[in-house]
Amino acid sequence: VAANRRAVHDAAMRLLARHGIAGLTVDRLADVSGVSRSTIYRHWPDPRELAVEALEGVLRTEPTSLRAAPEDPASALLAYLRDYARRLNDETYATMLVTIIEWAWRDPDFARRHTHTLEDARSRAMKVVRDGRAAGLFRPDIDLNEAVEAVVSPFLYQRLVRRKRISDRDVRRLHAGFLATFATAPE
Amino acid sequence: VAANRRAVHDAAMRLLARHGIAGLTVDRLADVSGVSRSTIYRHWPDPRELAVEALEGVLRTEPTSLRAAPEDPASALLAYLRDYARRLNDETYATMLVTIIEWAWRDPDFARRHTHTLEDARSRAMKVVRDGRAAGLFRPDIDLNEAVEAVVSPFLYQRLVRRKRISDRDVRRLHAGFLATFATAPE
Repeated sequence: VAANRRAVHDAAMRLLARHGIAGLTVDRLADVSGVSRSTIYRHWPDPRELAVEALEGVLRTEPTSLRAAPEDPASALLAYLRDYARRLNDETYATMLVTIIEWAWRDPDFARRHTHTLEDARSRAMKVVRDGRAAGLFRPDIDLNEAVEAVVSPFLYQRLVRRKRISDRDVRRLHAGFLATFATAPE
Repeated sequence: VAANRRAVHDAAMRLLARHGIAGLTVDRLADVSGVSRSTIYRHWPDPRELAVEALEGVLRTEPTSLRAAPEDPASALLAYLRDYARRLNDETYATMLVTIIEWAWRDPDFARRHTHTLEDARSRAMKVVRDGRAAGLFRPDIDLNEAVEAVVSPFLYQRLVRRKRISDRDVRRLHAGFLATFATAPE
């Protein structure tokens, strides 16, 4: 049973990566995984639930580097940006993110149930910004939404829309730009 | 012939919006448009070319408001942001953008041939930033890529990932934030 589940998960990931959610049919899953259609139907009556399992497995892995985030808020921001860049540079992670964004766009019901997956990067960034504000690094009057967008959106755009990998230079540039805009005193 | 072409284009748009590129099959196109499969095959041997025609028709409409852009660079930036927000708020435009981003991600060959479509918003923004720098509004030492990302990416993230419409308040906030970060003198 565990081997079947793993085979079907792997097949789902491969099909999602190649075709997106529209490509996830039971016929294809059976072909790619070698597991019988009846077994697949029995465990996942709705293949979209299988997709969710597979996607969340990839997207919601807690990064080691953030389990022990640096105390100093400027270093915490840098650690966050490095980790975010590393995830986005990962081919599987980025593909799954594109898949979820597209799926959520076309299927508001899916979007409502899985907002937390899409909001994951956002809520991590929110914590870093909030902690930095509490510690006095960022100005007390900053708009949290604006600050979080400035942290999260440029790399997402660079990687998913422009399909350019994020370099350590990009990370340092965004970090410096963010501090120049939101820090109480110049660095 | 013109009526057939229009019917097939409309069908393509509807199918792309509902299913993405994976949903664009000749069978479905014939069903939705009422045009025969043989006619569709004859005109568009590759349905992906049809998709490109339909998508570009939506995405590359020159906005009236930018044909006569304001001379003053701060107003030009505001006009750009308003127009960009208006496009992104349009359901069809946003859906086509998600479709293209996802398609380009999965199909590097398509991406290479149609980079200009995805880079369209970017090159408009680049012009506004470059003009503003030449006119002395923005600091002479700003990194153009960084500035363009700061213009383009937050609304894209808000609209395509968070699925939130962009308000005039959002436009003014981004405009003010951009000037605060990149202008030579505080407003």
